[in-house]
Amino acid sequence: MALIVHKYGGTSMGSTERIRSVAKRVAKWVGAGHQLIVVPSAMSGETNRLLGLAKELLPDARSAAARRELDMIASTGEQVSVGLLALALQAEGVPSVSYTGWQVPVRTDSSYTKARIESIDDVRVRADLAAGKVVVITGFQGIDDEGHITTLGRGGSDTSAVAVAAAMKADECLIYTDVDGVYTTDPRVVPEARRLQTISFEEMLEMASLGSKVLQIRSVEFAGKYRVPMRVLSSFTPWDIPVDEEARSGTLITFEEDEKMEKAVVSGIAFNRDEAKITVVGVPDKPGIASKILGPVAAANIDIDVILQNVSHEGKTDFSFTVHRNDFQRTVDLLKAGVAQELGAADVVGDAKIAKVSIVGIGMRSHAGVASTMFRALSEENINIKMITTSEIKTSVVIDEKYMELAVRALHKAFDLDQAAA
Amino acid sequence: MALIVHKYGGTSMGSTERIRSVAKRVAKWVGAGHQLIVVPSAMSGETNRLLGLAKELLPDARSAAARRELDMIASTGEQVSVGLLALALQAEGVPSVSYTGWQVPVRTDSSYTKARIESIDDVRVRADLAAGKVVVITGFQGIDDEGHITTLGRGGSDTSAVAVAAAMKADECLIYTDVDGVYTTDPRVVPEARRLQTISFEEMLEMASLGSKVLQIRSVEFAGKYRVPMRVLSSFTPWDIPVDEEARSGTLITFEEDEKMEKAVVSGIAFNRDEAKITVVGVPDKPGIASKILGPVAAANIDIDVILQNVSHEGKTDFSFTVHRNDFQRTVDLLKAGVAQELGAADVVGDAKIAKVSIVGIGMRSHAGVASTMFRALSEENINIKMITTSEIKTSVVIDEKYMELAVRALHKAFDLDQAAA
Repeated sequence: MALIVHKYGGTSMGSTERIRSVAKRVAKWVGAGHQLIVVPSAMSGETNRLLGLAKELLPDARSAAARRELDMIASTGEQVSVGLLALALQAEGVPSVSYTGWQVPVRTDSSYTKARIESIDDVRVRADLAAGKVVVITGFQGIDDEGHITTLGRGGSDTSAVAVAAAMKADECLIYTDVDGVYTTDPRVVPEARRLQTISFEEMLEMASLGSKVLQIRSVEFAGKYRVPMRVLSSFTPWDIPVDEEARSGTLITFEEDEKMEKAVVSGIAFNRDEAKITVVGVPDKPGIASKILGPVAAANIDIDVILQNVSHEGKTDFSFTVHRNDFQRTVDLLKAGVAQELGAADVVGDAKIAKVSIVGIGMRSHAGVASTMFRALSEENINIKMITTSEIKTSVVIDEKYMELAVRALHKAFDLDQAAA
Repeated sequence: MALIVHKYGGTSMGSTERIRSVAKRVAKWVGAGHQLIVVPSAMSGETNRLLGLAKELLPDARSAAARRELDMIASTGEQVSVGLLALALQAEGVPSVSYTGWQVPVRTDSSYTKARIESIDDVRVRADLAAGKVVVITGFQGIDDEGHITTLGRGGSDTSAVAVAAAMKADECLIYTDVDGVYTTDPRVVPEARRLQTISFEEMLEMASLGSKVLQIRSVEFAGKYRVPMRVLSSFTPWDIPVDEEARSGTLITFEEDEKMEKAVVSGIAFNRDEAKITVVGVPDKPGIASKILGPVAAANIDIDVILQNVSHEGKTDFSFTVHRNDFQRTVDLLKAGVAQELGAADVVGDAKIAKVSIVGIGMRSHAGVASTMFRALSEENINIKMITTSEIKTSVVIDEKYMELAVRALHKAFDLDQAAA
C-alpha cells in the first residue's frame, strides 16, 4: 500500500462527465489498495469567469484590500471542484471528504493572489486516510495568519499538490494533464520527439522555464526542495487501464542521478519565440553600465531574460538583452528617451523577430564538447547565432525566428534524441 | 449614527451592473453617517446551477457525507457575492472587507443543508466597523464545531441577516427584495391592496407561512425571538433616493403593540392554492384515530396543514386534512391501501381543487365578531365553506379553488383594507 497524491487540471475537471471519469480513475487506485489524496483544479474557464466579474467591478485591483477580495472570489472555483469530486467518488461507492485550504489548513503568507505556502497540517488528512477515506483538497489556496483566504497565483494547484505530497510524505505525486509526459522537444515541431521516461528535476526546471508548459515551475522547485517524486501523465487515457501500467506511464521527475541519467548528455530541446532582443550600441565600457541600463527597465516592471555584454572595443561596448515581445516597443522607447542619451550611447536597436533555442541536460555538467556540437549543427544549416548564454545544464542561442523549427530539428538529431534511451 | 444591516436578494445581485447599484446604495448610507453590515445572497441562478452540477454526479445525496459536500459546493455562491460586493464598494471609495460564515464565525449545528445558527461572534466584525469599514458577510452559511461548512437551507440569507443584526445589536435590519413591502393581500388579485407601513411579527409569521413569499419564515421567527426591528423594502428604487425617504419606505415588522396596531383588526388576507383536501369518511369515533390516520402520512414525509375532525354521529365521524397538492394522489393511495381498511372507514375521498383563504390580524385577539364578518362576506358571494380553522390571530377557510379571487376581494373589502390606516 502506498500513499499517492493525484492532481487533475482544469480540463480534466471540465464537465460532470470528465469529473465522473476522474472519480472512476481514483476509485481504481483505491481498489488496488492505495491511499489517495486528490487535488483538483477549478473547472476549466471558471477562474477566468470569476476574475472577469471582479474586473468589471474594479478594473484596477492592486491594493491589498482588493487583492484579498480577488482571492475570496477566485478560491471558490476549486472549492466547487473538490465538493463535486467528493460526490462523484461517493457515487462510485468510495468514502470521501473534501477540504478547502483553510480547513486542512494550508498556511501561507499574506501575499494575496501570489501567496507562498508556509506549512501544511497533516493531522486532519491523516485521520481521514486512516478511516479509509479519499481526501480531496483544493489546490491553489490557503489561509494566512489572520484567517484570510489566499491564493497561490495561476497554476498554483500543481504546487499545492506537491506541497501536500511533501507534508504527507506521499510515495508519489501524479500530475494528470492533457499531455502524456515530458518530451525531448515539442512533437509538433519534431515528429520524432520522444517521451522521456525520467527527467531530473533540474532539467525539468530549465525545460519548464524555457516554455515547456507542462508543469508550473514553482511546483518543480518545491518537488526538488522536498524531494517529492513527481510524475507527469495523461488524464486522457481510458480510466480503466491497469494501475500498474498507469503507474509506469508519463514522465517521472527524479532527484537521484542514477547511471541511466548520466548517459543522456542532452535530455531535451526547449524553444521560445516570445522574446525580443534589444541592443544599446556603443556605450562607454565603465563600471555600472548594466545597472544604469537595466535599472529603469526593471523599475518599469519589465522582465529581462538573456543578458549579454561582449568585450569592449576602443572603450566602447554593445550591451544586449531580451525582453518579452509584448514589452519590446515600450523598452526601446524607455531607453531612447533617457538612458541611452545619458550614457552617450550611439543607438538603441532592436529585433522582435528572434527565437531562443536551448539544449538542456544534466549530463552537460561533465561532458565537454556539447556546446560545440550544438554550434556545428546550427552552422551546417547556415543558421546564424545572434546571442549565446550558458548555464551548468543549459546552453541557449538566440537566432532569427524563421530558423527556429529548422534549428530545433537539427539539434534534436545532432544529440540523437530520436533514439530510444538504452 | 446607527448600525444598520442591509440584506440583498439574488435578483439584486444578479449582474455586475446590479451589484454596482447595491454598492452605490450602501455607499449612500455610509455617507449619511451610518455603520453598515451587508448580507448579500448568491447571484440569482447560481445556487441552482451549482446544485444542478452536484445532482448530475450524485442524484440521491441523502447521506450526511453527501450533504456535507452539497454545502461545500453551494456556499461558494455567497462567497463570490461578498467578494464582488466588497470590490464594488472599494470602487466607490468605501473601505470594505468581506467574510464568509466560517470567518466571522457564524456557528451552527451540523445539520448539513438545513443547519441552525447557534451563535455569532461579533469581535472581528465590530473591529472592522470601528475601523470605518463596511463589512460584507455571506448569508446562508456557517461552520459547525468540527470546522465543516454548513448551509441554512433555501432562503437562509434572510435568517443570516437577522441573526447578524441580533448578534451585533443593530438598530435595524433592512431586507431589500423585489417587492416594496408587505401588502394587505396580493395586488394582482386585489388592485386596491395597500402596502402596510407596519405589521407585527406574529402577523408576518402567519402571512409568510400562508404563502406571502416576501420573507423566509425562519427569519421572522428569529427577528421575533431577538426583537430585531426588520424592514422589507424594494431594491428597485433608484439607488440615489434620499436616505431619510428610503429609511421610511417598505414595511416595518415590529414587536411593540402600539395603539395604531390595535386599531387594525385584520391586517391582511393571505391565500394559497397549493393544497388538496382529503377526507376519511365514516371512521369509528374512538381515541387514537388521528394518530392512526396521520402517523403513516407523516412517516411518508408528507406535510399536513389544516386538520379537522367534526363531532361524531352514531359513533362515526369524518376526518379531514389538507396536504400539498403534489402529495395528494400519494396520500390517497397510502390511506386506501392500509389505514382506511384497518379502521373500517367507509371511504377515502379527496378534492385537489381547493384554496385556502385566511384573514390575519393581531387585533382579532381582542375583537369578537371577526369570524362572523368573514363568514357573512363569503356567504353574500354564495361561496360555500368546506373547512374552517382558527388560531389567535388567524382565521382560515377552505373553499372551492374557482372562488378564491372572489373571496379574497370580498374579504379585503369587508375588512376595509383598501382604506389607508389612520
